[in-house]
Amino acid sequence: MRHIKWMGALLLTVIWHGQMNAVSGARVEGSTFDNRLLPQPAALRSMDGEFVVAPDFAVRFDGPSDVRLQSAVGRLMAALHDKAGVGLPSSTASNPANAALTIKVHSAGSAIPTAEDDESYHLRVATNGITLEAPTDYGAIHGLETLLQLVQPSQSRFVLPAVEIDDSPRFRWRGLLVDCSRHFEPVAEIKRTLDAMEIVKLNVFHWHLTDDEGVRVESKVFPKLTQIGSDGLFYTQQEIRDIVAYANDRGIRVVPEFEMPGHSTAWLLAYPELSSGNAPTGIRRQFGIAPYAMDPTRDETYQFIDRFLAEMVTLFPDAYVHIGGDETSAPDWKTSPRIQAFMHAHDLKDSAALQAYFNQRILKILTRLNRHMIGWDEIFNPALPRDVLIQTWRGEASIATSSAEGYQGILSAGYYLDGMQSAETHYLVDPAPSQAALTAKQRSLILGGEVAMWGEFVNPETLDSRIWPRAAAIAERLWSPESVRDIDDMYRRLDAVSVQLEGLGLQHVTHQDVALRTLVGTEDVSDLRTFASVLEPDSFAMRFGRNQASQLDPLNHLSDAVRPDPPARREFDRLTKAYLKAPQHSSAKQHALEAYFRALAGCSAAVKRQASTAPGLQEIQTRAGQLPELARIGLESVDALAAGTVMSAEWHTHATALIAEAEKSSGNVHFVFLGPLKALVLAAKS
Amino acid sequence: MRHIKWMGALLLTVIWHGQMNAVSGARVEGSTFDNRLLPQPAALRSMDGEFVVAPDFAVRFDGPSDVRLQSAVGRLMAALHDKAGVGLPSSTASNPANAALTIKVHSAGSAIPTAEDDESYHLRVATNGITLEAPTDYGAIHGLETLLQLVQPSQSRFVLPAVEIDDSPRFRWRGLLVDCSRHFEPVAEIKRTLDAMEIVKLNVFHWHLTDDEGVRVESKVFPKLTQIGSDGLFYTQQEIRDIVAYANDRGIRVVPEFEMPGHSTAWLLAYPELSSGNAPTGIRRQFGIAPYAMDPTRDETYQFIDRFLAEMVTLFPDAYVHIGGDETSAPDWKTSPRIQAFMHAHDLKDSAALQAYFNQRILKILTRLNRHMIGWDEIFNPALPRDVLIQTWRGEASIATSSAEGYQGILSAGYYLDGMQSAETHYLVDPAPSQAALTAKQRSLILGGEVAMWGEFVNPETLDSRIWPRAAAIAERLWSPESVRDIDDMYRRLDAVSVQLEGLGLQHVTHQDVALRTLVGTEDVSDLRTFASVLEPDSFAMRFGRNQASQLDPLNHLSDAVRPDPPARREFDRLTKAYLKAPQHSSAKQHALEAYFRALAGCSAAVKRQASTAPGLQEIQTRAGQLPELARIGLESVDALAAGTVMSAEWHTHATALIAEAEKSSGNVHFVFLGPLKALVLAAKS
Repeated sequence: MRHIKWMGALLLTVIWHGQMNAVSGARVEGSTFDNRLLPQPAALRSMDGEFVVAPDFAVRFDGPSDVRLQSAVGRLMAALHDKAGVGLPSSTASNPANAALTIKVHSAGSAIPTAEDDESYHLRVATNGITLEAPTDYGAIHGLETLLQLVQPSQSRFVLPAVEIDDSPRFRWRGLLVDCSRHFEPVAEIKRTLDAMEIVKLNVFHWHLTDDEGVRVESKVFPKLTQIGSDGLFYTQQEIRDIVAYANDRGIRVVPEFEMPGHSTAWLLAYPELSSGNAPTGIRRQFGIAPYAMDPTRDETYQFIDRFLAEMVTLFPDAYVHIGGDETSAPDWKTSPRIQAFMHAHDLKDSAALQAYFNQRILKILTRLNRHMIGWDEIFNPALPRDVLIQTWRGEASIATSSAEGYQGILSAGYYLDGMQSAETHYLVDPAPSQAALTAKQRSLILGGEVAMWGEFVNPETLDSRIWPRAAAIAERLWSPESVRDIDDMYRRLDAVSVQLEGLGLQHVTHQDVALRTLVGTEDVSDLRTFASVLEPDSFAMRFGRNQASQLDPLNHLSDAVRPDPPARREFDRLTKAYLKAPQHSSAKQHALEAYFRALAGCSAAVKRQASTAPGLQEIQTRAGQLPELARIGLESVDALAAGTVMSAEWHTHATALIAEAEKSSGNVHFVFLGPLKALVLAAKS
Repeated sequence: MRHIKWMGALLLTVIWHGQMNAVSGARVEGSTFDNRLLPQPAALRSMDGEFVVAPDFAVRFDGPSDVRLQSAVGRLMAALHDKAGVGLPSSTASNPANAALTIKVHSAGSAIPTAEDDESYHLRVATNGITLEAPTDYGAIHGLETLLQLVQPSQSRFVLPAVEIDDSPRFRWRGLLVDCSRHFEPVAEIKRTLDAMEIVKLNVFHWHLTDDEGVRVESKVFPKLTQIGSDGLFYTQQEIRDIVAYANDRGIRVVPEFEMPGHSTAWLLAYPELSSGNAPTGIRRQFGIAPYAMDPTRDETYQFIDRFLAEMVTLFPDAYVHIGGDETSAPDWKTSPRIQAFMHAHDLKDSAALQAYFNQRILKILTRLNRHMIGWDEIFNPALPRDVLIQTWRGEASIATSSAEGYQGILSAGYYLDGMQSAETHYLVDPAPSQAALTAKQRSLILGGEVAMWGEFVNPETLDSRIWPRAAAIAERLWSPESVRDIDDMYRRLDAVSVQLEGLGLQHVTHQDVALRTLVGTEDVSDLRTFASVLEPDSFAMRFGRNQASQLDPLNHLSDAVRPDPPARREFDRLTKAYLKAPQHSSAKQHALEAYFRALAGCSAAVKRQASTAPGLQEIQTRAGQLPELARIGLESVDALAAGTVMSAEWHTHATALIAEAEKSSGNVHFVFLGPLKALVLAAKS
């Protein structure tokens, strides 16, 4: 990586807006630089002045420029056209001497992105021009995304603040898993996801293509996999090639996952001869762990997998193939005399040992096919060589354990989006925190992490709102220095990136209104929108625990409409904390809280009426019934606090009981304001 | 078409909700049938009871079922799955004896849809099952769409009211033109458009593929057409085949338009040898009429077009090819001695005669290629035989003129969506009103009409909101009996169909919020949303007249965000009319109006602030400045009316002046409430 002279040790962490000057000897009096970069770069120096984006904005290549880089520049130009009125790429002169942006890439880099690519870049915005320098295309693509996020309005025009950025990722493996088996996600949804990944510098698309509920990848060698195991919902080989190329164009690797030996019901339905005993009789519809597995004792199993993987590597050029390997419930392995005899003969003492034997054989196949193996925690076994990569889902401790044993690892525990946790919660999970007792060698084995979007309760309509913008917060954790962890600032920038993603066509924000309108059948959903704004969907575990849901259930409930970590959660929290500092001297905050509670009380009657007539709203009748009383005690608390009066113990008991009732699970959704409300109720009593 | 016994002459118009019983001898006491069908069917009989949609809803074919019909049933099942929880198509038994829906199609119909297809169907929903019968696939597809619109919530489940429908279109040509030359619309946008067309039973996609601003169709014979004339934005032949197949699947014809001899700048840029004199030096960016045309005097021109059309008909199987022909401004034709000599030699007295000569030669080519010619008004010329089809854009009178001369015609005058008129305005335009002095023969020559979406100010983001839901109102005009013209009822059903279209993925409603967020860069746009809700975009003519806009201008202004014919327009109108009937005795309406005006006043400060900092909002600073004063006089009017006091003449003069000022054009948007406000101000004075 190119060394930047001015970048001393003190500057090796991100410099926050304004503060940086204090560190580097300030040259930016009066700078209006609004740092909305997400992820934050490794190092940034703000300078005087700004570069004005003009309609004749053009790009010059000072070095090699292959199709991938030109395509990235085309996307930049299209975005600048939409945002800032720059001419269409084709209408500006190509490679003009007086280009606004000069790009110097030292070499095009590997033909496809790999885990070893140098992704660094150096970006310099001066008042008279912009230069982007990078060792490879991959770094240059990241630099272009940073450049785009720097564009900001300034009166009647758009500018980039003068700035020098020297950036490279903290972790080289920054992935997003999308489960396309439990619910199929069409090509358009996958492409939108890749578009968004590029923006936040995620670089591995982990494509979960097979599971109990469906095989989604076309095999011409074994066509029954999709003929029998997919409900007709799968990616053709042409579509897969198209998506791999689309990702490649954005510097994103595609790592396919083929679950084996468990999580393979759909596969075993198509080819029962692979089964270790009982073969399934249909595609698995109920979620959870299915009691089927492949037979690790028969050579034919490996011959089948060999042929299958040999075909798959023609579609997926990445150096890694994910074999799943998690949650192998294989009752047959324990009861089949034949399998037990095999285990005895091979000195395999339990199912885990048998699975390790299976993995060793698969590893041979992959090695011959010139691929590395990656698998979930359960493949971790001393029987396997050190060059397998372990993906950790069972807890953050696992990654330390496997790295202590010398295995490379990536972290997904803490990054499961179906837990419906806040961006903040995920954001604070670090794959290799500095306080952890890890040797330098062990740290070097931790390659990064992956966001995981499991598909039980996610369909093409809801995909975006379940992934974004929360995944962007994790993307920053995987890219930026460990010290970047200011929650408020993260949310401020997340808001900007959320709008940027919308501009690309993502539907994470709009989906809620669309779903509400579909639920009630009319365009005006103002009351229902107010109600929905203070609800969050329950986690996968809560929803699944209550209701052993099936793949065939439609995802058309209010819980599918509302977003995890909605703005109202933070707004209520922020407002209440601020108000409680001086309740008798914060009339603006008092009025804001009152307005909130009044709006909630005001929408209740209409929502209750709709909940009794719209089938998709039946399940939230209880919640609709709770809202007016909760709003009332909120108003009463604020009134008392503002007036300096004290509510009775009886009132407090009643209010607390109401809140406790509302905390119980109901309708697969929960209120986001109960914490602040509790604080208000408590304060109003004392 | 199957004759329905109960369908007497009295029933040959649509029976409105409830009223129908009075006509047919009522059997529906207590029926809760909420007729939201759009377009309304030719005849409908409501019956007792309802059919309950159960999860095992399955379909049986009692007769032929080809791929097209099965694919339509697949879409129905997917929609029922999303809406009403029916299982996935593949998870229900195929062709079961106890199917909920039995489909009987007499014959699959023509391989591709044609203007001669029988599109009728008969749909009967009984409490114990549904039957759909149709002479062809095409009718059956329409029937399936009607069936889907009948599904409605009833407590915790979904039902279809028992009903018998006998339906067929009033006009056989029900088209939608999309101009993909001035702005390119990618494949996804075209498919969304076709999805929506199917819902409202439009059956001709008129694809405007070439114009001055770009050639969008790949020619392998003449590759420079797109290499030079498209900015790289065009449909490959594979994409065209894909779209034609997609449309075919939905019973929609695809009629391509290749503009000649005018509107051909991009074409002449690629092949200057076709030009009648001066050849263009670049793709035309400025909108308006370009001074270039093909040379009608050279045989080479016809040889070129012959080879081009011969290639095109391999892509477009429809029996019609549209040759444009409008607005041929060809100064060379008048000044070139060679062309003048040719005209003299052939006894062609003017440019129109020369164009008629050109059209005759093109007609010969098309006839040899087994295609009918369709063109705009300007091709109407006695020199052409009677089997050309005239598309009327210059006024509703033209279609009467051409049909009087024995030409077939379709109407587009009155259906130009870029006029940004209300759905209501378009809805009342009838291609062949019964009061028009037309003979039966002349009426039979009027095949229908086409909605026209010209592309000067439309890009992929704004396309949906410019077409929908307004085009649905025109679709009803072209399908339903002439007597169906109740405006309020149309809007009630348009609201439902608008939500249905959203469920398909259309962005006509969500786009506004997305665009507002992009304009200001944050997720919360509540104030700007209030402001935008009372604005409409100016018409193409107004915007173009003020500013000779270019294809390269980004469409990122507030005028691109706001929707034509927004709900607030009708709401203000309705509320004001109702209030003014008894202003001192309508407190609910009074409060609603006050709340409206207060909200408008309330958002003004924030909007003014944003307008001064966001470049895309600069142009609406004047509008933002006008709003608080307009809101204030609105409030003052209502206050005075409610109190029974009279405002002074001075106040009235001032208020009237404010409104007059606000009526002036500014920022390419206008307020939708000035009419009602004027009425309030007038009432408050007297």
